[in-house]
Amino acid sequence: MAATATGDLVARARAGDKRSLARLVSVVENDDPGAAEILRTLYADTGRAQVVGVTGPPGGGKSTLVNNLAGAYRERSSRVAVVAVDPSSPFSGGAILGDRIRMRERFLDEGIFIRSMASRGHAGGLARATARVVNVLNALGTDVVLVETVGVGQEEVDVIGVADTVCLVTVPGLGDDIQAIKAGILEIADVLVVNKADRPGADETVRDLAQMLSLAKDHPWKPPIIRTSARSGEGTRELVDAIEKHRAWSAGSGEQVRRRRAAARVEVEGLLREALLRELAGRVGESRLAAAVARVAERSLDPYAAVEELLRG
Amino acid sequence: MAATATGDLVARARAGDKRSLARLVSVVENDDPGAAEILRTLYADTGRAQVVGVTGPPGGGKSTLVNNLAGAYRERSSRVAVVAVDPSSPFSGGAILGDRIRMRERFLDEGIFIRSMASRGHAGGLARATARVVNVLNALGTDVVLVETVGVGQEEVDVIGVADTVCLVTVPGLGDDIQAIKAGILEIADVLVVNKADRPGADETVRDLAQMLSLAKDHPWKPPIIRTSARSGEGTRELVDAIEKHRAWSAGSGEQVRRRRAAARVEVEGLLREALLRELAGRVGESRLAAAVARVAERSLDPYAAVEELLRG
Repeated sequence: MAATATGDLVARARAGDKRSLARLVSVVENDDPGAAEILRTLYADTGRAQVVGVTGPPGGGKSTLVNNLAGAYRERSSRVAVVAVDPSSPFSGGAILGDRIRMRERFLDEGIFIRSMASRGHAGGLARATARVVNVLNALGTDVVLVETVGVGQEEVDVIGVADTVCLVTVPGLGDDIQAIKAGILEIADVLVVNKADRPGADETVRDLAQMLSLAKDHPWKPPIIRTSARSGEGTRELVDAIEKHRAWSAGSGEQVRRRRAAARVEVEGLLREALLRELAGRVGESRLAAAVARVAERSLDPYAAVEELLRG
Repeated sequence: MAATATGDLVARARAGDKRSLARLVSVVENDDPGAAEILRTLYADTGRAQVVGVTGPPGGGKSTLVNNLAGAYRERSSRVAVVAVDPSSPFSGGAILGDRIRMRERFLDEGIFIRSMASRGHAGGLARATARVVNVLNALGTDVVLVETVGVGQEEVDVIGVADTVCLVTVPGLGDDIQAIKAGILEIADVLVVNKADRPGADETVRDLAQMLSLAKDHPWKPPIIRTSARSGEGTRELVDAIEKHRAWSAGSGEQVRRRRAAARVEVEGLLREALLRELAGRVGESRLAAAVARVAERSLDPYAAVEELLRG
């Protein structure tokens, strides 16, 4: 992308043009040519938006909840963005479903920007692609960015690392796997949400969570437990209040600075790694690599010996 | 770990001593000193075991199903191993629950080896740690290795890349997120399992899957759909038959070679990357990195400029 074209798009996106914003977001999401230039130009203006992460196991109604949150934030902010990291995409290479349909109403609102991200094929990984997208939204006048992801694996935990406040969404009665996931929530959740709180077992889930919290070591921030019913919209107001409380605490206590520094480290280390991999490609070469891989696959060479050979040559 | 100690452990593990095997597996899982030596020693003996992956969204009863599969394979094989990648662990840094309790019965069987792996803190990532563990089990006389993971993110898809046959487990009625996950299954699943098939909605789920399969392009292997009820054990026999059919097809069609080559590439590229990162650490140094990160976090330097500065110095 030529420098003047970028400048035009940035000016138009700043003025609120969603199509220009969408184009810039796509360029940085895919790390297309021009992405580094866009990010370098905008970087000084980042760090202003409030970034709220919403994570949790599949089937928890996160999309509907995020839809409600987007509506609630829109009442008090002029520009809200939703970045939905789609769990389907590791398999298909593309965001498939849902958000566009479910959020149709929000789509018609010029003040809400929605992006579904696939979780495969991002230069430097999903977490870094998310960070690039959030930075662009952030620099171009978005007040609140909601990042939705499925909180199961390490990669999803890394994605949510861009957020100032992390909401973990659980639902009553999802079985053992979910229990296991919950057991570790204290390390990443700032606000706990029990969605589908009208279902049987909700009281029990809230009680379980409260008990886990009570067992935790003294943390300076004690995550509140909010009951919601995303379908009816109940609890949305309380959830926004809890997020705002955490935001105020985080800004006052130095937690926000600490998190942003951690996010910056991920970004810088990632770029360093990419620079080195480019060096590597030049040094080793695909044909030598393919030949070594074939020998490793048939067990005539071990992988450690292969690497020694490749780096020696 | 001293070379003689390693040699002793290897000899004892080969003879069937589970404690020695457990020790070796821990060393390679954590990439402790001696790990590379163990893997280099054993590498030529790998590639013999049958590696079966079981993946799918949380709440699908995968652990119980794997427990049943372990029992069924144990009837025909002298040594079976289960490697369970625990979804809880990205948060907690340690495998927490479940397997040890759920699989108590299997634990008492000298022919079954069980390892729960946390999904955080593995050198080179979870997929590579899993590959190292599978390689050690493989080389030391295990006939069948069952790898269980939660199939949601890219990392979990990478983990399952070690398997010769991948079973994708779904259950009736898990909602939209699950639908989205299913939409891409054709790309990684060799056998489709509808577990909890006694639940309402099972016929519908089977029908949906069959329809998705019928829409797929001509694939040389058409994944069968197997109904199971992990709790009662129903369908386990049919599932084993389906896995065996895939195995025979894969060995005959060249698919197995293709997959093992892909896995070898991941391994070699990962080791190359690690070698380069060691170079990097020496070249940049932690104090310079921390200083640059702090400036990036406060937006007085952009990450691209930081990397240029760090690599120049």
